[in-house]
Amino acid sequence: LHKPMWSHHDGEPNLWASFRHAWREELAEFLGTFMILLFGAGVECQVTLHYNSTNSGHGAAYGDYLQCRLSWAVGVAMAVWVSGGVSGGHCNPTVTIVLALFRGFPFRKIPSIILAQLAGATCASLCVYLNYTHSISRFEGGDDIRTVIGPHSTAGLFFTFPAPYLPDSSAFYTEFLASAVLVIIVFALADKGNLSPPQGTQPFAMFLALVGIGAALGVNTGYAMNGARDSGPRIALWLVGYGNEAPPALVSTTPSCIPVAILHSIALQS
Amino acid sequence: LHKPMWSHHDGEPNLWASFRHAWREELAEFLGTFMILLFGAGVECQVTLHYNSTNSGHGAAYGDYLQCRLSWAVGVAMAVWVSGGVSGGHCNPTVTIVLALFRGFPFRKIPSIILAQLAGATCASLCVYLNYTHSISRFEGGDDIRTVIGPHSTAGLFFTFPAPYLPDSSAFYTEFLASAVLVIIVFALADKGNLSPPQGTQPFAMFLALVGIGAALGVNTGYAMNGARDSGPRIALWLVGYGNEAPPALVSTTPSCIPVAILHSIALQS
Amino acid sequence: LHKPMWSHHDGEPNLWASFRHAWREELAEFLGTFMILLFGAGVECQVTLHYNSTNSGHGAAYGDYLQCRLSWAVGVAMAVWVSGGVSGGHCNPTVTIVLALFRGFPFRKIPSIILAQLAGATCASLCVYLNYTHSISRFEGGDDIRTVIGPHSTAGLFFTFPAPYLPDSSAFYTEFLASAVLVIIVFALADKGNLSPPQGTQPFAMFLALVGIGAALGVNTGYAMNGARDSGPRIALWLVGYGNEAPPALVSTTPSCIPVAILHSIALQS
Amino acid sequence: LHKPMWSHHDGEPNLWASFRHAWREELAEFLGTFMILLFGAGVECQVTLHYNSTNSGHGAAYGDYLQCRLSWAVGVAMAVWVSGGVSGGHCNPTVTIVLALFRGFPFRKIPSIILAQLAGATCASLCVYLNYTHSISRFEGGDDIRTVIGPHSTAGLFFTFPAPYLPDSSAFYTEFLASAVLVIIVFALADKGNLSPPQGTQPFAMFLALVGIGAALGVNTGYAMNGARDSGPRIALWLVGYGNEAPPALVSTTPSCIPVAILHSIALQS
Repeated sequence: LHKPMWSHHDGEPNLWASFRHAWREELAEFLGTFMILLFGAGVECQVTLHYNSTNSGHGAAYGDYLQCRLSWAVGVAMAVWVSGGVSGGHCNPTVTIVLALFRGFPFRKIPSIILAQLAGATCASLCVYLNYTHSISRFEGGDDIRTVIGPHSTAGLFFTFPAPYLPDSSAFYTEFLASAVLVIIVFALADKGNLSPPQGTQPFAMFLALVGIGAALGVNTGYAMNGARDSGPRIALWLVGYGNEAPPALVSTTPSCIPVAILHSIALQS
Repeated sequence: LHKPMWSHHDGEPNLWASFRHAWREELAEFLGTFMILLFGAGVECQVTLHYNSTNSGHGAAYGDYLQCRLSWAVGVAMAVWVSGGVSGGHCNPTVTIVLALFRGFPFRKIPSIILAQLAGATCASLCVYLNYTHSISRFEGGDDIRTVIGPHSTAGLFFTFPAPYLPDSSAFYTEFLASAVLVIIVFALADKGNLSPPQGTQPFAMFLALVGIGAALGVNTGYAMNGARDSGPRIALWLVGYGNEAPPALVSTTPSCIPVAILHSIALQS
Repeated sequence: LHKPMWSHHDGEPNLWASFRHAWREELAEFLGTFMILLFGAGVECQVTLHYNSTNSGHGAAYGDYLQCRLSWAVGVAMAVWVSGGVSGGHCNPTVTIVLALFRGFPFRKIPSIILAQLAGATCASLCVYLNYTHSISRFEGGDDIRTVIGPHSTAGLFFTFPAPYLPDSSAFYTEFLASAVLVIIVFALADKGNLSPPQGTQPFAMFLALVGIGAALGVNTGYAMNGARDSGPRIALWLVGYGNEAPPALVSTTPSCIPVAILHSIALQS
Repeated sequence: LHKPMWSHHDGEPNLWASFRHAWREELAEFLGTFMILLFGAGVECQVTLHYNSTNSGHGAAYGDYLQCRLSWAVGVAMAVWVSGGVSGGHCNPTVTIVLALFRGFPFRKIPSIILAQLAGATCASLCVYLNYTHSISRFEGGDDIRTVIGPHSTAGLFFTFPAPYLPDSSAFYTEFLASAVLVIIVFALADKGNLSPPQGTQPFAMFLALVGIGAALGVNTGYAMNGARDSGPRIALWLVGYGNEAPPALVSTTPSCIPVAILHSIALQS
């Protein structure tokens, strides 16, 4: 299906073409996860950093909570389109691991795919950070102030925090529930024996699913559901000089994939 | 069409596999109705319980009325995708009964299907309740306060109440009108002799239909249109300790399917 | 394509079945235009009549301007699905006349089709009026007060008024522009030589088109673009006791179809 | 594929038909870019000029920031539908140039296509200006006052300005990033070796992409990404009497296509 790129050309394959073919799934996952964070971190920065801006000229803010949910969902839809035909469009370590455990995705590919996802999320976070660095400085109160926690912190625009009133067990439960719903929907949409959307329209369905998950289950923990989406920005912000006070990532996201997968395997796998 | 699951495997069918095949339509209806309530009750809790929260950091609430309509509609779309290919995607006793009366759905399956729908709605309500129990306690004013009626009541986030100024006849009429529109749209979308959406894209159309019904006919009674969607949460909240002061469910929802179905049968059935 | 309904049954065709077959296009246009007004007038009533209601429990209004645009657009999408396969899904006298002039739709059908569209819009307006009669009375200030013009008038929820500051020539121009865009889009979506959406997905495109037209060109005149959509509610409100002070309908809507059609025929018809 | 129009008729081809066939791609690009500006400049005028209007009757403004993003995205979707089957649906000089450089679009067509895009954007801006001229006069403070910069300026409703606090390098970077994302998505959606949407549904995907880009990357520079979309309105406003104080267009938009295209060609072209 995916022939080497150079087979379409007359010339000899060059080094880059060979590299690109060998790592095409990683490149696709990189680009897909890049899309998620670009649209996601981008919209959080746009809306929060300019919310009380008088610059809009007509009293309207630059978006609201719903707009943020829509843009994250657009990011996931674009992620699936740019990577779906090459790598399957996981863009999420949880999905990769579950597919390896229960759908025959090759285990040996897991490390490089997850690294690619992480790198994509990190790069996109850096791109978004660079785009909004002036607004971040204004919001934080200075060009060299970058805080992870506090009233003018901007780290929460890039990665997720559980709500402060939430016990750890509840945060874990929320992530478990959201991830379970996500995995069930991913599997249902891919199930040709069910009412799956036509080939190429799955991203529209993922768009709706993400809008719904963000709208219904987003407030407690930020519906990370995705270790790369949450860890990539942490690396990016650490690189540009933010501190380390954030609660650890992954704790409440990736491990939840195991019970979800087992549950799904028992009850729903077809 | 739907071969037993074990036929794809070499081994003997185990007890669970046999059970799963025999009850696959009920499992699908369970999961579908679960989706409706998860996204629906979830978004109501998220928006209402955190509406004045200062936690959002930028003055924006965690969604608005439109976001609630979108998330309920996402729930219905997901319900049809997870169950449509197995059970037809009713996820609504009204639809099941109408299809049995006018489209040849087997009558003997009605009780178990409706039970499955009810169970799905109940389980999803419990999952959402567990997810937002901290916020509910804060909203109600204490960990052991759970009220059905009153200024800080949270029961209305899960099941529907008619608006207080509305006579019963008007509440019945609203549910009748909304259910009639829903059934007509369901039948039109399934009518291959009409301009039906391509196979697998019907949930997108149901999404739009539910957004419109909630936007145009939602304020009087909460557009239940679905006995399971309304009764499941009542069971769930009763189980976790809410009171019994709510007006009875079903009165204004399920019976309306009969005149709607007769009307449709006379004028529109093809 | 559309065989008589009774040909599927063994029994004799009864009177109703014969009637239904002979008038199936009118029935479809009736039902389609019914959908437009049900979702459209419904959402206007829901949002405006309950905008400052404290009943929502969390300070959120029952929708906003965007929600109104979405619901009108849902109405048009549903109109095309319920009628598209039978009558072509005009649901708009302008579209019917243009198709007769330039696409071979039979002229002799124009009167009955337009009457059906008008009847559908009238019936839907009555259904919506009945649904919100309590809220209308509260908004107007009494059970027997129904005003067309004034601070508590509710006629504008059903039919369109030009903005008070607008000269007639500008109102005509706005309706001309919006109708021209609508007709061009309808023709482009139906043009198999262009990038038309797959069969059955045109209503999704019409949904987007109507959202855009309402969002971009709605404020001056209410983007009627449709004599039936505007005249039906006038008949309905006159029947239930509103006055006659409204500026005449149609003046700024239907006649604009002729120059639009000529323009399109010259420049774009393929 | 696209036979001359007159071949479907018996008569001789007239002058207009010959002209229309020879320039059909330019006509399509004209109409497509017309759609973008009609929906885009239209919604900016509707929302901003009437934001504090008391005319809406229920305290709701005539839309918000999200509505503007949706309508621009609708414009792009409609642009692709009206032109996609004839000219490929560029409606953007950047896309035309990139496709000529890397996808074999004929270079000799570039000038006439870009002129057509520019003319479409100019004409649509004039149509929108004429539609809202009363509201613009009220907003500016008089019938003969038209300002490009200042508290009551209305030029920003038609073409884009970088945010005042933004250095030129940042404005260039934002446009580069947004254009890069747009081009990557356009190429991914058209890549039959990837998970491309079914023929005729690409405009739905472009709709989502534009909603996301506007939501996530819109605040800094107005996400022009399109020299015609930005320059056409400048010509239109100059024609109707606005001043020349605006910062030059194109500087931050069109040139960014070259590095984007090179980057894409190296890493992603298939």
